[in-house]
Amino acid sequence: MPGYTMNKEDLQARLVRIEGQVRGLQRMVDEDKYCIDVLTQLNAVSAALKAVGVGLLDTHVRHCVRKSIAQGEGDVAIDELVASVARFVGR
Amino acid sequence: MPGYTMNKEDLQARLVRIEGQVRGLQRMVDEDKYCIDVLTQLNAVSAALKAVGVGLLDTHVRHCVRKSIAQGEGDVAIDELVASVARFVGR
Amino acid sequence: MPGYTMNKEDLQARLVRIEGQVRGLQRMVDEDKYCIDVLTQLNAVSAALKAVGVGLLDTHVRHCVRKSIAQGEGDVAIDELVASVARFVGR
Amino acid sequence: MPGYTMNKEDLQARLVRIEGQVRGLQRMVDEDKYCIDVLTQLNAVSAALKAVGVGLLDTHVRHCVRKSIAQGEGDVAIDELVASVARFVGR
Repeated sequence: MPGYTMNKEDLQARLVRIEGQVRGLQRMVDEDKYCIDVLTQLNAVSAALKAVGVGLLDTHVRHCVRKSIAQGEGDVAIDELVASVARFVGR
Repeated sequence: MPGYTMNKEDLQARLVRIEGQVRGLQRMVDEDKYCIDVLTQLNAVSAALKAVGVGLLDTHVRHCVRKSIAQGEGDVAIDELVASVARFVGR
Repeated sequence: MPGYTMNKEDLQARLVRIEGQVRGLQRMVDEDKYCIDVLTQLNAVSAALKAVGVGLLDTHVRHCVRKSIAQGEGDVAIDELVASVARFVGR
Repeated sequence: MPGYTMNKEDLQARLVRIEGQVRGLQRMVDEDKYCIDVLTQLNAVSAALKAVGVGLLDTHVRHCVRKSIAQGEGDVAIDELVASVARFVGR
């Protein structure tokens, strides 16, 4: 599969791992670990979530958007895609 | 408490909620929910994580960094703080 | 035009305004303005740049990607689009 | 100087370079360069701006915040710092 493509199993496996990382953060806070170390771990979770987001976008463009365009109905799908990317980048 | 300050209970409550949100994402993927809706939910989780990160930074500056500076040993604490913020903003 | 669409004139006008904002930042640094105020202004420039980025993406999807897909050659265009979004969100 | 510290000359030199990069973006749009290439260049400008932001934060903590804390008046400075970091990370 190309670089950012994830199938359903990949997405699930990553989300299960992220859930475990969030529980790890709870443990670190519970054990009063050093703030900077907790933040470093939190950044890792954020990065993992963003990667899942890119994987979801990849699936969406490759299937839904492509299909809408091929059927000559791309406008709505493109509006929605761009709005979603805009929120993803924080705009 | 000032705007971004969180005590240990706040941090834990937020992380438990984030864990639930991540399980919600797993459910959405499992039920083949529309990608754009999953992405919207994923953005909410990212924002919640960032808020916890800001809360951790607040605690860190208010306690550790302040104490190091008051003891005339601020340099190392400040180097570490800035490096941590740099990673947090993606630099 | 839909929400995020910008034509060439819009893009140019925004980039000229951003150039002016960057000169404003130079002036603030030159006049030793309060760091927090400079940072607030810098955040405004970053946000304006991101908006231009979303406008560019919108144009790209609406024209290049759509055309590639309509011609049955969407795969390369989609790989490239997703890689570009991934860099844009910092992945 | 430690990793993220910038003096006034560094900050100015970087902002002048960023101004040139923004003019480069205008030229690329004017010459109808490929959107993905414009976006790649725009990401470089965003990253350069963020680096200046981290440099400003570094100066601010190292001077203003440190001084306020040493004078026993850190609370307001810390509130303001954390609020500024929160905006910087998009919270």
